[in-house]
Amino acid sequence: MPDHAPPAADPSLITAFRDILGPAGVLAEPGDIAPHLSDWRGLYQGEAMAVLRPASTAEVAACVKLCAQQGIAIIPQGGNTSMVGGATPEARPRQVVLSLARMNRVREVDTADMTMTVEAGLVLARAQQVAAEHGVLFPLSLGAEGTAMIGGLLSTNAGGNTTVRYGNARELMLGLEVVLPDGSVIHGLRRLRKDNTGYALRHLFVGAEGTLGIITAAVLRLFPAARETATALCAVPSEDAALALFRRFRTADEGAVRAFEYMSGIGMGMVLSTIEGATLPLSARADHYVLVDLSASREGAGLRGLMETVLEAAMEAGEVEDAALAESEAQRAAIWRLREEHPEAQKRAGASVKNDVSVPVSAVPELIRRASDACRALIPGSRPVPFGHMGDGNIHMNLAQPEGMSASDFLARSHDIMDVVNEVVRDLGGSFSAEHGIGRLKTDMMESWRGGAELDAMRRIKAALDPRGLMNPGKLLPDA
Amino acid sequence: MPDHAPPAADPSLITAFRDILGPAGVLAEPGDIAPHLSDWRGLYQGEAMAVLRPASTAEVAACVKLCAQQGIAIIPQGGNTSMVGGATPEARPRQVVLSLARMNRVREVDTADMTMTVEAGLVLARAQQVAAEHGVLFPLSLGAEGTAMIGGLLSTNAGGNTTVRYGNARELMLGLEVVLPDGSVIHGLRRLRKDNTGYALRHLFVGAEGTLGIITAAVLRLFPAARETATALCAVPSEDAALALFRRFRTADEGAVRAFEYMSGIGMGMVLSTIEGATLPLSARADHYVLVDLSASREGAGLRGLMETVLEAAMEAGEVEDAALAESEAQRAAIWRLREEHPEAQKRAGASVKNDVSVPVSAVPELIRRASDACRALIPGSRPVPFGHMGDGNIHMNLAQPEGMSASDFLARSHDIMDVVNEVVRDLGGSFSAEHGIGRLKTDMMESWRGGAELDAMRRIKAALDPRGLMNPGKLLPDA
Repeated sequence: MPDHAPPAADPSLITAFRDILGPAGVLAEPGDIAPHLSDWRGLYQGEAMAVLRPASTAEVAACVKLCAQQGIAIIPQGGNTSMVGGATPEARPRQVVLSLARMNRVREVDTADMTMTVEAGLVLARAQQVAAEHGVLFPLSLGAEGTAMIGGLLSTNAGGNTTVRYGNARELMLGLEVVLPDGSVIHGLRRLRKDNTGYALRHLFVGAEGTLGIITAAVLRLFPAARETATALCAVPSEDAALALFRRFRTADEGAVRAFEYMSGIGMGMVLSTIEGATLPLSARADHYVLVDLSASREGAGLRGLMETVLEAAMEAGEVEDAALAESEAQRAAIWRLREEHPEAQKRAGASVKNDVSVPVSAVPELIRRASDACRALIPGSRPVPFGHMGDGNIHMNLAQPEGMSASDFLARSHDIMDVVNEVVRDLGGSFSAEHGIGRLKTDMMESWRGGAELDAMRRIKAALDPRGLMNPGKLLPDA
Repeated sequence: MPDHAPPAADPSLITAFRDILGPAGVLAEPGDIAPHLSDWRGLYQGEAMAVLRPASTAEVAACVKLCAQQGIAIIPQGGNTSMVGGATPEARPRQVVLSLARMNRVREVDTADMTMTVEAGLVLARAQQVAAEHGVLFPLSLGAEGTAMIGGLLSTNAGGNTTVRYGNARELMLGLEVVLPDGSVIHGLRRLRKDNTGYALRHLFVGAEGTLGIITAAVLRLFPAARETATALCAVPSEDAALALFRRFRTADEGAVRAFEYMSGIGMGMVLSTIEGATLPLSARADHYVLVDLSASREGAGLRGLMETVLEAAMEAGEVEDAALAESEAQRAAIWRLREEHPEAQKRAGASVKNDVSVPVSAVPELIRRASDACRALIPGSRPVPFGHMGDGNIHMNLAQPEGMSASDFLARSHDIMDVVNEVVRDLGGSFSAEHGIGRLKTDMMESWRGGAELDAMRRIKAALDPRGLMNPGKLLPDA
């Protein structure tokens, strides 16, 4: 049950919002609002007096100004795919959800500058598609790409599969347009690789999870399309062998590695037993797997040869037991599917607790081993399912429930599980949130991980830009 | 003449600083202080009661705390190579220069993680050398690398020759240690590619020019060393041809272009006539030149073949008139020297006004043409000497004095010259400061270029983190 009664919709306010946005821009009926009040994982449920759906930056600014005048809190929402409850309202009065979904235009694609200017509500898959239609690449790639929107991806500095090569969302952004908490607008849609003119405000809004303002549009970087790819699934004898293989590829051709993904034997087993049509293109099951994806914009780059040379040397060194190279786009997709179905397979295997953590790349093997051991010791019979982006140090150190246990008994231990994993992460110099952010799920970890001068500086910045605390309250920063 | 009398050194304060830093850590004699009071271009001259030379982060923090208590302003200084007076004190009382020069240790080099943890006073050339000794690359490269220090390079988000491939200083940084204006310390030396845990404070300090705190150490990214390079000097018929050639290389192999530098016929002429030993490796002089530098970490990358293929196609298309490929490291260095001696040659050709500006890459030809015309119209006989980083849109749109004019008459027109260049830059969606920052030289341009919501947000952040305005006063932000 929510802490507060649902907010009564103030009719004069709804009228004022409709005056700005027109009837189609304001959802005020409970049935229309409802889909915007829960996160997709089903962890959080909140309230809002209305859902605002502005179609332009000017409309966003006018709404924000009105909310500032009336002391109404705003929860910016894109695709609402946050893993940590970052875009869902809390149960508190006098607040609105502001959906960017109608701001979904591609304002400009410039293949001379290799930039694309898009609005916050553009879905990532559509951004990828538009780039491809222009013969170029927008490289950000992650599981929720069919739903997640550019504004949310930037607000959470999304990572995904290609960080090892192209960086996170932050590194794919050159300029931002932002509506500040007082309704003023930063017109920062610059398309410049070099621009040292004061504080890098755009980098403050990226990753701020909507707590400092609302990103309404962005200039994104484009890259030449891949002319060649080579993809392999490898069985490797250990976590250390997986890391050694990554280092081999990085040394052989730093720029070629587009993704380097680790999967455990347990996780792959769940995929093979629960996902229809999933088959292992190797002669036998293994305890550890690696997906290597190479790509190059150069014609005749010889990636197939590079792949074979490196794998041969790794096999001789005992770092690779078996490997399957994709011979077609269909085989490449089938290999990627084994990786991408990990979350779904875990879901089918019962309840699981997700730990999105990172460590220095060199510490990934130790993270996997020590965190798995700690989880098994905490809950006997539980099944560690580590997988993810070994090449950038980000492992989803997830834990599936023991087969006999009830889901609710297992989930009651969520925080204990996060604690034992985080203890290992901290010891290895890592981070308790790699790519998903803080949202509502991890605010109570901020004091212990970022407390002192760092958290104090964050609070000062929040107070400076949003003195009344109206932007996405309850997210990112813990209550003071 | 300075506006104020030189500050009287308060003996009890000097004693207090000596108690923290020891006798070697405090310079208080005018002769010892003097070298720290002027910028290297000779544009600015200021005052300070002492130069503090801490040797550790704890010492920096203790000094800053004492200054905060006593209301003493601090001018952080690295190599003091700012082109815009960013590290030189103003003429005002009660301030100290805080030199990072003694904090010059390499704390750790980790070739598994490809990171290097270094202190702020490490000279860039030394950082490059340490990386090379470990068989890896720290790619930041610029003219002042023999003097400029890591702390200053990060505080100004330095760019240089390799931005087209590796990004600016910001993109080469993973973590920072920072002493805040109240003397508290942010211990952010994390070595993580993914870490979404609150506001990206490190990106706020990068480019803040020491106005929000003092960077004392940083985690830098390392890259595999180049196994192959290919370098060419090309004569091209026009600015448009130069851009077309860049696009050819980017399309052929995006990752191979390490630098792509434009030089004008006038500038090259100055180098050839004033720099001893400079010779043109081409059959005839041209109006426009391009230096293309390719590199790859992959063995047998075939860059020579790539270079020849692209240049041949460009010649057939009329985009390249003549080209010389370096056949040895000595020839490569000789080609680079023609580019690197541009500032010195300009100096020898008389007074010049420097305009460090950027535009979207596609607009570089128009920038060069229109800004050159505007300069010539403003001061008949003046010689535009545009050169620089075409691949990232950053051109040094410099202007040399007419041969007959006196230097002082010419320099009296500095602001008029900057104004006509900036008018073109603004029209093309560019920036009035690409890689040198604001410092003291360009604070009066901030209102017109970044005024409104953007500058207001910067001021709020400054007030939030440095409420008494003690950190590098007079720099970056214009007086309110």
